[in-house]
Amino acid sequence: MSVHSAPARRGTNLPRVGDFNESVVLEAIRRSANGMSRVELARATGLSAQTVSNICRRLLDRGLVEETGKQSTGAGKPRTILTINPVSRFAIGVHLDPAVVTYVVLDLEGRVVEGLRRPTPEVVDPDQTMAEIGESVGTLVERAGVEQDRILGLGIAAPGPIDAAAGLVVDPPQLAGWVRVPLRDHLADATGLPVILDKDVTAAAIAERWAGAAANTGNFLFFYLGTGSGMGIVVENSIVRGASANAGEVGGLDANCTTRALVEEAVATGVLDASHTTTSPHASEQSLQVLTGLAEQGHVGATAILDGWAGRVARGVAAAATLLDSDLVVFGGPIWPQLSSWFLPIATDVINRSPFVEKMHPTTVTETALGADVGAIGAACLVLDRTLSPQPESLMFS
Amino acid sequence: MSVHSAPARRGTNLPRVGDFNESVVLEAIRRSANGMSRVELARATGLSAQTVSNICRRLLDRGLVEETGKQSTGAGKPRTILTINPVSRFAIGVHLDPAVVTYVVLDLEGRVVEGLRRPTPEVVDPDQTMAEIGESVGTLVERAGVEQDRILGLGIAAPGPIDAAAGLVVDPPQLAGWVRVPLRDHLADATGLPVILDKDVTAAAIAERWAGAAANTGNFLFFYLGTGSGMGIVVENSIVRGASANAGEVGGLDANCTTRALVEEAVATGVLDASHTTTSPHASEQSLQVLTGLAEQGHVGATAILDGWAGRVARGVAAAATLLDSDLVVFGGPIWPQLSSWFLPIATDVINRSPFVEKMHPTTVTETALGADVGAIGAACLVLDRTLSPQPESLMFS
Repeated sequence: MSVHSAPARRGTNLPRVGDFNESVVLEAIRRSANGMSRVELARATGLSAQTVSNICRRLLDRGLVEETGKQSTGAGKPRTILTINPVSRFAIGVHLDPAVVTYVVLDLEGRVVEGLRRPTPEVVDPDQTMAEIGESVGTLVERAGVEQDRILGLGIAAPGPIDAAAGLVVDPPQLAGWVRVPLRDHLADATGLPVILDKDVTAAAIAERWAGAAANTGNFLFFYLGTGSGMGIVVENSIVRGASANAGEVGGLDANCTTRALVEEAVATGVLDASHTTTSPHASEQSLQVLTGLAEQGHVGATAILDGWAGRVARGVAAAATLLDSDLVVFGGPIWPQLSSWFLPIATDVINRSPFVEKMHPTTVTETALGADVGAIGAACLVLDRTLSPQPESLMFS
Repeated sequence: MSVHSAPARRGTNLPRVGDFNESVVLEAIRRSANGMSRVELARATGLSAQTVSNICRRLLDRGLVEETGKQSTGAGKPRTILTINPVSRFAIGVHLDPAVVTYVVLDLEGRVVEGLRRPTPEVVDPDQTMAEIGESVGTLVERAGVEQDRILGLGIAAPGPIDAAAGLVVDPPQLAGWVRVPLRDHLADATGLPVILDKDVTAAAIAERWAGAAANTGNFLFFYLGTGSGMGIVVENSIVRGASANAGEVGGLDANCTTRALVEEAVATGVLDASHTTTSPHASEQSLQVLTGLAEQGHVGATAILDGWAGRVARGVAAAATLLDSDLVVFGGPIWPQLSSWFLPIATDVINRSPFVEKMHPTTVTETALGADVGAIGAACLVLDRTLSPQPESLMFS
């Protein structure tokens, strides 16, 4: 038996501790409903009064927080309340779905300050699409009226597989011609901003954690339904990205629910006529609208297709929830609003009745409160998360 | 959209940094093949020469490391080499499988100093079984000739579900009468040692990381085959335990391969006669030996049963490997040695040919090098991991 040879973990030192503690204080202020006094901050973070005082001074100097009032405590002098200054910094999020590109500007409280939506160009030319994305980001920032030096960065959520280290979109099933495309560096050049690239499903899960339904748990799954589908996974407060940042593929769970597959089944069973035979992601989405419209009118065949897919997805989600001991499942994504009325009741029922869902605790099934923009909001949250959240790993020398 | 209200992350300070850096240095020495000089340690950990020197002094004082030679570097005076003193501390591991209880004493290099195996008592009386386990630990320590004050603690690996916070075995399918049994506290009382309780599959994965095949990856799955089956999951260097420390259930993946299910299928298909109808975990294991013996002699029906289960398990593992972007799958557990010659080639083939296994990197399929003791070794590694490894979370105030 030999001991192993993975790279040694690195040590830490005082300057790194200082940066970390600053993030801890900022996060405590940001998360509080009505701001916090220095005394409350010291109690919440475990830091000394002196350390909290120094950190607050730096955060005030940088404009990230404000003194917004006094809190009377009966005896003694009133305490000054610190709140986040939500419009002191912003992040941009871009969500590239094969059918639609969504853009948002987010403030520090996770509010959408400005948004934009454009059909994904139906050209097999990533350069042209990237140029359009760059232009749209410019339009977005102009409309938002936000100064460039207040923008922390740009996050981009793309369909997998991606090469996270190199910033490439590798070869997604429904983005024709996108083979190892350097989307991250292209957008960095086009916008002059620091850019982070991640998978759409991962971004959606981060959105839910920052600003959505996953407030009170560190163990949840986000089932994403767009042109493709997949899962964003959070375990013990950490996003699961895996060996190559491509975690979240659900094909092996028989839960890969794509717009194309739904429409193809409808054509194959005669629910939709042959004119709906899928050509592009955008055409698929329009055909799906016809399919869900039929189901809304009570069409038996259309309803059966949606119910069948809802059941398969739910069984896959139940398998993953048991494997990972999750206590919350959130559904969302660009086509979720069209599917929710069929999928949500079936998914809730199947997951709760699954003999494999852990008996130790209930599993809550819900849908995102962030709407169809969840991918773009998540992309912006990638920036907020990396820039502002305390990251224990950041303590170690790199 | 409201920001969320999970408990605030806590800050850190200098004493915690000191403890963390000490763990970092100890781990670097422990992992090195032939020891390290102080200069090499400073380079590997990023710590200053002075910090490394102070930490080495403390580790020498506590006997955890030794100065074992000089390294000539050409110019200048030779450097003193520090190596781990493997027999300065020990950990005890106990693996409770419904058929067999395995005990080991492990040294700091993960070597088994002493081992013991006892059939699990076939009584519906956890108190009696716990008393026997306590006595066996006493026997083990006596045989090993290890002083009590050199034992860091005792780890126990049990079938799930468990209540990790309370230290309970909750109600495992094949341990009759074990309903919310306080196994952790009972063994702490019986042995006077600090005790950690975790799931068998989780312990096995930790063993593989400390002393086995998972040396060079932070993203792997351990498929455990004992009286029951399940998966130990490591993602980005962290063990995945989930909301209630019960991660790893594979029933939803249709990969729940139990000794009982194998034998029942053999009886149902006439491969084994009715005398093998399962009664106890121990009897099932003996029947399984008959079944694998028949397969070894070329019995078609016996082979078909084993091949069928191998395929189902492999498909479940492939689904999980894609979901979690793992690049290594390790098989092992108490009954793995009996099944390996059928399962390993089929699993390797199915996982590598799976259309869902990630195209970004190959997925290696292998078996544990730790043998049938992997659960007990893992239980002891729970202690080593918590006591000696650098834990970034330990930096934060609790």
